Amino acid sequence: MKGNVIVGQSGGPTAAINSSLAGVYRTAKDRGAKKVYGMLYGIQGLLQERYVDLSEHITTDLDAELLKRTPAAYLGSCRYKLPEIHEDPEMYDRIFEILCKLEIEAFIYIGGNDSMDTIKKLSDYAIVKGHSCRFVGCPKTIDNDLALTDHTPGYGSAAKYIATSVKEIIRDSLSQGYMSKGQVTIVEIMGRNAGWLTGAAALAKGEDCAGPDLIYLPELPFDIDRFLEKIRELLAQKTSVIVAVSEGIRDAEGTYVCESGTATEFVDAFGHKQLTGTAAYLGNVIAGEIGCKTRAIELSTLQRAASHLCSRIDILEASQVGGAAVKAADEGDTGKMVVLERISDDPYQCGTAVKDVHKIANDEKLVPRDWINADGTYVTDEFITYVKPLIQGSVSPIMVDGIPRHLYKPTSML
Amino acid sequence: MKGNVIVGQSGGPTAAINSSLAGVYRTAKDRGAKKVYGMLYGIQGLLQERYVDLSEHITTDLDAELLKRTPAAYLGSCRYKLPEIHEDPEMYDRIFEILCKLEIEAFIYIGGNDSMDTIKKLSDYAIVKGHSCRFVGCPKTIDNDLALTDHTPGYGSAAKYIATSVKEIIRDSLSQGYMSKGQVTIVEIMGRNAGWLTGAAALAKGEDCAGPDLIYLPELPFDIDRFLEKIRELLAQKTSVIVAVSEGIRDAEGTYVCESGTATEFVDAFGHKQLTGTAAYLGNVIAGEIGCKTRAIELSTLQRAASHLCSRIDILEASQVGGAAVKAADEGDTGKMVVLERISDDPYQCGTAVKDVHKIANDEKLVPRDWINADGTYVTDEFITYVKPLIQGSVSPIMVDGIPRHLYKPTSML
Repeated sequence: MKGNVIVGQSGGPTAAINSSLAGVYRTAKDRGAKKVYGMLYGIQGLLQERYVDLSEHITTDLDAELLKRTPAAYLGSCRYKLPEIHEDPEMYDRIFEILCKLEIEAFIYIGGNDSMDTIKKLSDYAIVKGHSCRFVGCPKTIDNDLALTDHTPGYGSAAKYIATSVKEIIRDSLSQGYMSKGQVTIVEIMGRNAGWLTGAAALAKGEDCAGPDLIYLPELPFDIDRFLEKIRELLAQKTSVIVAVSEGIRDAEGTYVCESGTATEFVDAFGHKQLTGTAAYLGNVIAGEIGCKTRAIELSTLQRAASHLCSRIDILEASQVGGAAVKAADEGDTGKMVVLERISDDPYQCGTAVKDVHKIANDEKLVPRDWINADGTYVTDEFITYVKPLIQGSVSPIMVDGIPRHLYKPTSML
Repeated sequence: MKGNVIVGQSGGPTAAINSSLAGVYRTAKDRGAKKVYGMLYGIQGLLQERYVDLSEHITTDLDAELLKRTPAAYLGSCRYKLPEIHEDPEMYDRIFEILCKLEIEAFIYIGGNDSMDTIKKLSDYAIVKGHSCRFVGCPKTIDNDLALTDHTPGYGSAAKYIATSVKEIIRDSLSQGYMSKGQVTIVEIMGRNAGWLTGAAALAKGEDCAGPDLIYLPELPFDIDRFLEKIRELLAQKTSVIVAVSEGIRDAEGTYVCESGTATEFVDAFGHKQLTGTAAYLGNVIAGEIGCKTRAIELSTLQRAASHLCSRIDILEASQVGGAAVKAADEGDTGKMVVLERISDDPYQCGTAVKDVHKIANDEKLVPRDWINADGTYVTDEFITYVKPLIQGSVSPIMVDGIPRHLYKPTSML
């Protein structure tokens, strides 16, 4: 390529998002890009001309390795939805003015649904206005809810963290099982509408672990009475019951379970409800109705930030889609997103392709109904077969003084 | 030794408690014990004659390695305080009847304060009654609050997990820093009265991380007004503020901060209050008073169960104290606890010794006042020097199918 590349990160952080950044940087350099810029805080930062020259940050191969092991958006992220073109054409003019000044040939945006909306609008605008810059999206979300791609980078590492943590929580609960009334542990897992992350709790099951007893995904309505019945049945058989629930489970009327309690709630910039407190609420209901000990655990931020326990497959694929995005743009693609296409489950093989971003943006891929069991309390073997390859392999953290080292981020980038 | 050994685990689980069990088993076998029994669920299970022959569970060297990497009490734990001898002499007779039947020469109990109370009472009773069985305690607690020992096995691994997780949370927060009003993240860490675990959050600080902005230990009274003032000052300088708080912080009157809110509370078998919700409460106060975004994260159970991220020093020392306990009992000690005695900080060197359990039981070691800064908002360099050696080195998890393998625990042990 003859011009420059600019790359941004958007939406919720993941453990793999910087591996995509490293992939973009390396491929852009390999293909002859003069400069690779990083927008600070995504499109929102770019609008204020906040960007860095990545070669000043990734100066050695060791830096690139550290970057792959650094959680959360190295460049900073944003949750910013561009207005429709007709609503604010001046904003689009402003963006393209900056891109022209920087001689940008390829604009790569690493993100989820909302970020692909940005790629769609910018590429549409460029075509209409005759700008030559190409816009390609690079998938990223722990939620795994992007359409047309087999899975999303970031999901595998989150799934590995969830499976490992749930397994450790199960052991912890078992060791305290000598209690007459039993104990119910409820683990709350991210995923507002899609149960991909919550379902990954099933991976805790193996020769040395019975796994969770119940798994509730947000795809199906949650019935509190049937839930309590299940808990009672389980407590009749065992002293420690483990339940994995999505933060987003709703009753048949569509009311979030956590809204039934005292859980806090607020709305983000995209109008999504931010939810917490589902596990705490269910724990309180069980304690009140059944009278046993309960424990509510939110895996919280760590499920997207725990790069000390990432999946090797995930980190490698994240880098690959970054490289593939640059290659696609260099070869003339625009308004596209790189997708992962699975060739086989076992041995696991997966390649990349590019798809029209118009078919991806603002769409949500949910867990298929037949990957959830009949009474909606567990995932099926098909789900396990799908997710298991994605958590394989480890990337050893680079430990300094007992804790993982991350790539240094100067305060000027904050 | 000529007779048999019995070992039990008691109190809250840790990532290192099974390494002590492995150490007890190996040393007992090395010193000629015919049988090494494991009580199921501590003294409470023993009273119901629930025990296993450990050689049926640790059959190979690989089993021993898996055991060291298995979190939470493999044998099951209890929170059971023996009555005073005069209150229920029949119970003591019952215990010694079982011990005699099993030809127990050494009784090793792995636990914290309350467990050392068990060692004290049983050894007192044995001396009075002329029983030859020896009773030695093996320290264990993530809280690090046992007297007379430099530190406790279990603490180092928990500290490493806390430092790593806080560092990852800080990165996650920084990547979302592009918000005008800023965001305050409050990380709630275990430790009812002692701030050893919360102070370990300071280890996140290094060349690549600024560390938390504020650290509040339970040793000093917490003033909500001064806290809000500090938060306001920090938000004037930066967009992301990180606070580490102990679950047990109290105001000047001794009221737990979490009791000011809607936090749940209950009392365990030893009369200790179980606390949750300090971070959530502080987050709500900040949101109400300052109006910025807040995020409350409880590290919860994982700080004691995350054996996938344990400290090598901790796992080795846990095994050493287990072996030293058997050696002490074999050499005639009773009514003692093994302690760790630090020889030097750098290079770190540490040995074992035995101390009278009467001087340890029911005592709590707190963080010294001069290891906390003047205004009570951080730990000092002395604290860092003390804890840093304890988180060094890793024990690689034995990964099977993408997640850590633990030692198999048959359902008969549940």
